[in-house]
Amino acid sequence: MKEVQVYSPATIANVCCGFDVMGLALNEPVDKMILRKSHYPGVHISNIQGADLSKQPNKNVVGVVLEELLHHLPNNKYGIEVEIYKNIKPGSGIGSSAASAAGAAVGANLLFGKYFKTTDIVQFALIGEKLACGIGHADNVAPAIMGGFTLVKSYNPLKIISLPSPKKLWVTVIHPQIEIKTSEARKILKKEVLMTDAIKQWGNVGALVSALYREDYSLLGSSLEDFIVEPIRLKLIPAFHELKRECKKVGCLGGGISGSGPSVFMFSEGKEKACSVADCMRYVYNKMDLKIDYKIYISTVNNNGVYCSFTN
Amino acid sequence: MKEVQVYSPATIANVCCGFDVMGLALNEPVDKMILRKSHYPGVHISNIQGADLSKQPNKNVVGVVLEELLHHLPNNKYGIEVEIYKNIKPGSGIGSSAASAAGAAVGANLLFGKYFKTTDIVQFALIGEKLACGIGHADNVAPAIMGGFTLVKSYNPLKIISLPSPKKLWVTVIHPQIEIKTSEARKILKKEVLMTDAIKQWGNVGALVSALYREDYSLLGSSLEDFIVEPIRLKLIPAFHELKRECKKVGCLGGGISGSGPSVFMFSEGKEKACSVADCMRYVYNKMDLKIDYKIYISTVNNNGVYCSFTN
Repeated sequence: MKEVQVYSPATIANVCCGFDVMGLALNEPVDKMILRKSHYPGVHISNIQGADLSKQPNKNVVGVVLEELLHHLPNNKYGIEVEIYKNIKPGSGIGSSAASAAGAAVGANLLFGKYFKTTDIVQFALIGEKLACGIGHADNVAPAIMGGFTLVKSYNPLKIISLPSPKKLWVTVIHPQIEIKTSEARKILKKEVLMTDAIKQWGNVGALVSALYREDYSLLGSSLEDFIVEPIRLKLIPAFHELKRECKKVGCLGGGISGSGPSVFMFSEGKEKACSVADCMRYVYNKMDLKIDYKIYISTVNNNGVYCSFTN
Repeated sequence: MKEVQVYSPATIANVCCGFDVMGLALNEPVDKMILRKSHYPGVHISNIQGADLSKQPNKNVVGVVLEELLHHLPNNKYGIEVEIYKNIKPGSGIGSSAASAAGAAVGANLLFGKYFKTTDIVQFALIGEKLACGIGHADNVAPAIMGGFTLVKSYNPLKIISLPSPKKLWVTVIHPQIEIKTSEARKILKKEVLMTDAIKQWGNVGALVSALYREDYSLLGSSLEDFIVEPIRLKLIPAFHELKRECKKVGCLGGGISGSGPSVFMFSEGKEKACSVADCMRYVYNKMDLKIDYKIYISTVNNNGVYCSFTN
C-alpha cells in the first residue's frame, strides 16, 4: 500500500459524569489526512491546512505519533509523508488533537499492513495527546479509534471498553470560537473532591453505562450530571447556564461541557429534536448578543471511528 | 390476607468500587419473619429469635418500618403482630438490618393488598436502616427488595436501577464472628478523596456495570478494585490481605469487604470454584490460628429478593 486517505472524527470526552473515562465519536466534523510511504526515512509534513500548526514532526501531534509508530515497526526502510487538512479547530473541546493523533496512528498502521493491535494504536495516539495537552488521556483518542461510546477502565494496564450506542441518539454541539487550552482547564480543577460528590458521580457513571446498554433515553438524560468538574469549568464557557436551561426546555435529554470546553453538547432522541436544540442554541447566542462567532454541528454517534480509504 | 411468612435475604453492599451505590442479594443466609394482621392498632413484636434485639417497636428496625408503613396506609383499622427469626447476625456486613427492614416493608405491603409501589417500599425500609446505621442508605435494602444487582443512581429523587446478574456467578462469603458497626466503619472514612482515585473508582464502576450486561467474568473480576474505602477499612478485617491473596490464587474473580465488614466476599465463575474459595478461606483462617469463629456461605445471586408465602 502506497497511500492512505484518513478521515478522523471529532469526539466528546467526559460526557458529564464520566470525567477522564467516558467519550464518544461524532460523524461531524471530521479531519482529513493523506499518508504516503516515502523512500526517505522519518516523518515529512508537506502540507497543513485549516490550522496554524508546526510542520516540525517533533512539535506536531501527527508528527510525534508517526515517529513513535515508525520507531516500533520492525525492519522498516520507509518514512511517511503526510498532508493534514484540519476541520476540527484546536482548543475546541471536541478532540482536535485526538483526531490528529488517532488518524495518524490508524492510518499509518493500515499503510504498514496492520502490524499493530488496537491497544498499541491507542498507545501511539496517546503520545500525540501528551504533546498537545501535557498529559496522555485516552478519553478522546479511544472513541476516535474505536468508534461509538468508550470507557477507559484503567491505564495500567490500558483497558478500554466499547459501549453500545442507542440507535436514536443524536448530538448537537455548539462550538463558540474561543480557544480553551486543555492544560489550562485542568489547572483550575481541585486535587481533592468531596466523598459525597464522588459517590453521586459514580452513581451516575453506573447509570449512564446502564442506559447505553438498555437504550433507555430517559435514564441516559438523567445520568448526565456532573457534580465535580462542571461547577468549576462552567465559568470558562460563554452562556453555559442559559444554553443548558433553554435546550432542556425544547426537550433535549441533557448535556454539558464537551471535553474541557468551550464546546457544549446536548443529546437528543431523534434528529428532529437535535435540530430544535441547534435552533435553540442559535437563539440563545443571538439573543444574548455575545459577539462570539460559533459553529453548530448536528450528528449521530459515529460507530466506526477513524475511516480510511486507500490506493495500492 | 391474614398472615404472611417473609424470607428476606442477606445482601452485599458496595461491591468494591461501587461504595454506597452498588449491591446484590444472596440466596443464603435468609431471615424469616411472620407478619399477622392484628385487631389492635400499631406494631406488636411477639417473638424475636437469633439476635438480642428490642421488642419495643420504636427501637426495632422491623418495628419502625412497620409503624411508618401503617402510618401511610389510608383508612386502615388493623395493626401488625410480628415474629422475627434472625439468621443474619447484626454487624455482620451482609445486610442484617436491611434484611429486617426490607422484609418488613415487602411483607406488610403484601399483607395490606400491595397498596405501595417499589420506591415507597424502599423508602419505608430506609427508615429501618436509619435506625440501625444512623443513616438511610439504600445499597442493601434495594437488592434485598428488588433482587439481583442494583445501583442506587440517586436519592433525590430516589432512583434505583436493576442490573442483570451473570448466570454462572457464585459468591463465597466468610463472616468472622466479630461485630463491626456500620456507623463506626463510616467514621474512619475521609470526607475528601483524591480526584485521581475518584476517577479510577468511577472507571471501575462503569466497567463493573458493563461486565454485568456483557456477562464478562474477566472484566467483572478486574473491575473489583476499590481505591477509596478498602485501603482504610481493611485494617478492621481479620486477615483481609491473606484472604484476598489466597482466594485469587485458587481462581476467584475478585472480591472485597462486604458492606462495612467484617464479612469478606469473593466472586467465582461456577459452583466448583466457589467451593474451592470456601476451602481456601477456611485454610487461611485455620492456618493463621486467628481464634475467631467464622461462618462461610456459598450462594448464587438471588434474583428475586424478599420472598413471601401467605395464608388468606
